[in-house]
Amino acid sequence: MRLHFYFFCFIVNHMVNYYKSNLDQVFSVLSDPTRRAIIEELSKGEKTVKKLAEPFDMSLPAFSKHMKVLENAGLVSYRKAGRYKYYYLHQEEFYDAARWLNDLKSFWESQLSSLERYLLNNEEEGGNKK
Amino acid sequence: MRLHFYFFCFIVNHMVNYYKSNLDQVFSVLSDPTRRAIIEELSKGEKTVKKLAEPFDMSLPAFSKHMKVLENAGLVSYRKAGRYKYYYLHQEEFYDAARWLNDLKSFWESQLSSLERYLLNNEEEGGNKK
Repeated sequence: MRLHFYFFCFIVNHMVNYYKSNLDQVFSVLSDPTRRAIIEELSKGEKTVKKLAEPFDMSLPAFSKHMKVLENAGLVSYRKAGRYKYYYLHQEEFYDAARWLNDLKSFWESQLSSLERYLLNNEEEGGNKK
Repeated sequence: MRLHFYFFCFIVNHMVNYYKSNLDQVFSVLSDPTRRAIIEELSKGEKTVKKLAEPFDMSLPAFSKHMKVLENAGLVSYRKAGRYKYYYLHQEEFYDAARWLNDLKSFWESQLSSLERYLLNNEEEGGNKK
């Protein structure tokens, strides 16, 4: 029974850590403009590194380092076709980060509407007293 | 006339740089779990550093460093009331980051529905041929 409990704790802890580290990694990756541009480009469909690197004034090895960061963070993968590697995006890995920011906005907006309700109620009460 | 054009270019360039550097900074700040927790807490209302630091197993100087990062990035400010500094959040500074991630999701979802449309059309055409 106790073993089950420890196993349960291990799983929960693992999930919490995954969730945390996923957010740490995703936000860290997104703090660089080149990496954001690569992600935007890959959201339109899979591409080779050569094609992805074209718009950037950067050496191919320097560009490949950015690709390695994205790959190590589990945000992109590739499939091989002959001599070429086609990179594609793991879109679902960005969902938690988007949710985190949207939750922040929702909370803020709900607070604003509480304030509006409070002001409106006070206004009505003030009006009734006249 | 040419002067107007240069001024216009300067303004546009300035705006683009602001937008880029704002995203760089916001995402970089968000890559740390302590800073995310502080932001979540401040989204509920203004607080002193002492109150904010309470849940963390961290020295006050170490915690203050995180506050300094948030302050330098223009994400929090404080007002003085007697001996106390009350910190509050600049919620609007997170909007661009949220929009960037939501745009990524919208684009992905619109692509998915294009694929659905394509598959449905093909299915119908296939059905008609029978």
